[in-house]
Amino acid sequence: MRLATLNNGTPDGRLVIVAPDGGHSANASVQTLQQAIEQWDMVAPQLAATAVFPDMIDPAAVAAPLPRAWQWLDGSAFPAHGDLMDAVLGITKPKTDVPLMYQGMSDTFLSPLADARFPSEELGIDFEGEFGVIVDAVPMGTSAADAMGHIKLIVQINDWSLRTLAGPEMKTGFGWVQAKPVCGMAPFAVTPDELGDNWRDGRVCLDLLVDWNGQRFGAANGAPMAFGFHELVAHAARTRDLVAGTVIGSGTVSNANFREIGSSCVAERRGIEVVDLGEPKTAFMAFGDDVRMEAVDGAGHAPFGVLHQRVVRA
Amino acid sequence: MRLATLNNGTPDGRLVIVAPDGGHSANASVQTLQQAIEQWDMVAPQLAATAVFPDMIDPAAVAAPLPRAWQWLDGSAFPAHGDLMDAVLGITKPKTDVPLMYQGMSDTFLSPLADARFPSEELGIDFEGEFGVIVDAVPMGTSAADAMGHIKLIVQINDWSLRTLAGPEMKTGFGWVQAKPVCGMAPFAVTPDELGDNWRDGRVCLDLLVDWNGQRFGAANGAPMAFGFHELVAHAARTRDLVAGTVIGSGTVSNANFREIGSSCVAERRGIEVVDLGEPKTAFMAFGDDVRMEAVDGAGHAPFGVLHQRVVRA
Repeated sequence: MRLATLNNGTPDGRLVIVAPDGGHSANASVQTLQQAIEQWDMVAPQLAATAVFPDMIDPAAVAAPLPRAWQWLDGSAFPAHGDLMDAVLGITKPKTDVPLMYQGMSDTFLSPLADARFPSEELGIDFEGEFGVIVDAVPMGTSAADAMGHIKLIVQINDWSLRTLAGPEMKTGFGWVQAKPVCGMAPFAVTPDELGDNWRDGRVCLDLLVDWNGQRFGAANGAPMAFGFHELVAHAARTRDLVAGTVIGSGTVSNANFREIGSSCVAERRGIEVVDLGEPKTAFMAFGDDVRMEAVDGAGHAPFGVLHQRVVRA
Repeated sequence: MRLATLNNGTPDGRLVIVAPDGGHSANASVQTLQQAIEQWDMVAPQLAATAVFPDMIDPAAVAAPLPRAWQWLDGSAFPAHGDLMDAVLGITKPKTDVPLMYQGMSDTFLSPLADARFPSEELGIDFEGEFGVIVDAVPMGTSAADAMGHIKLIVQINDWSLRTLAGPEMKTGFGWVQAKPVCGMAPFAVTPDELGDNWRDGRVCLDLLVDWNGQRFGAANGAPMAFGFHELVAHAARTRDLVAGTVIGSGTVSNANFREIGSSCVAERRGIEVVDLGEPKTAFMAFGDDVRMEAVDGAGHAPFGVLHQRVVRA
């Protein structure tokens, strides 16, 4: 089952069921995705039974599937990326057996085609292509094994980042605020079964195709996470109850062979250049640049649809 | 004007106007504080004109004035506390001229008399008494001077902290997730004018009386913040629009003469012991312990009411 949210002038939009062709939809039996996830086990069968797809979707009317959430916790679960970024930022992190995770802003997720507004190009504007899951209510102390069943929907996220601010904020120990502005979200939230065999061990085993100004920049696969999403959910829930609609992210999708397949963010490319060439060669994004992200399976199907955002001056 | 929220079985509760005696209230013209703050300039005069106070408040029915918020950003604006904690945690932070701030969980604020649930005493259970402000919508890039006008309400917060987890999470650079579980909030949100001369330069110049198991533990004043709340709001809004209802915190209230007047958290007391005695003597909280917090002016008036929470096993 694929879900989308259409702009209707309200902050949470109108939830729709999306046809297999991705171009048609029908109103859901509840108004919003937040309402659906709060009573998922009752609502999901009703949604799945919605079989009529009368309305053409206007891509410009598509909001983020969850246009705002009560909580957004983003991991950094791809070790290929994390190890490289630590070296480049000059951060020495203690080696631990727990996931890395920060709390980010969740009051807005940008529509998949929305411009991303930033005050200055000097801040090191960067995209981060990643996957995320949306859970129903998860009680404090839930184990990773039990957390798997709380993963109700999977999404694709562009975690906009301002790299000039990121290093200094990390060094405070307080984590990121200014360096992590509002994220974007691809059009469709999908149930795990929609991914078939490509949802394995709590990982989204799809290639995330990232194009920057029309040029292929990365095609990393979501499989090699050091922790599955169920483990990230359990980590998040260790000392708090997670409210229904909490979004948990994977961090930038990254594979060890990033020199061949590319990266899901500019910072990683620059990090490779620092290691290989002694200094970064690739500049961060400029106003007017755009990034396109689409996760595809072996047959070229894109379950989450296309995110395509342009960078503009705020 | 003082506002409170009464539990009515909904997540956002029922907004009421509180009489000067603090014991009576009348229903507000909008249902929730979130609705009020989203259209504050129109709603506030209606709320202020509500002059009838027919109903006794049942303290057990009082929720946090904002039982959940779209965003909670907590500063650390008291240098007496920050400098001490850095030394104790072994963190060397670069000296900067910008405030310290992290993003915390905002999907729930506990009621002023609610038990606080934690999985284990081994996690270093601690309270943090602080002040916070609630803003209306603040556009990205708003200056500190302009931010002052966006501060519509002031609140008193207990930022529960798990100290055993705090140091390791800081060292990752990602900030706190597990170390910062759900906060509590004192009963009343007040407009700045309600504090009179005790709202000065964006600071809440009241003594925060903190009692642990019935013993006075701290009485620090909110005045000596290195940054006023208007500056914290501007910092938060540098690269993002702040949605109406965003809560911005001061961090633990702390004064340089903490050896005389005490502290607003156990960690600070332990830090003083480390400095003075070579090791911490005061244990963190145990299950069954309680903490009471009440900010008072020179005449003993407590504009935010009393927060009184007990620590229990989750």
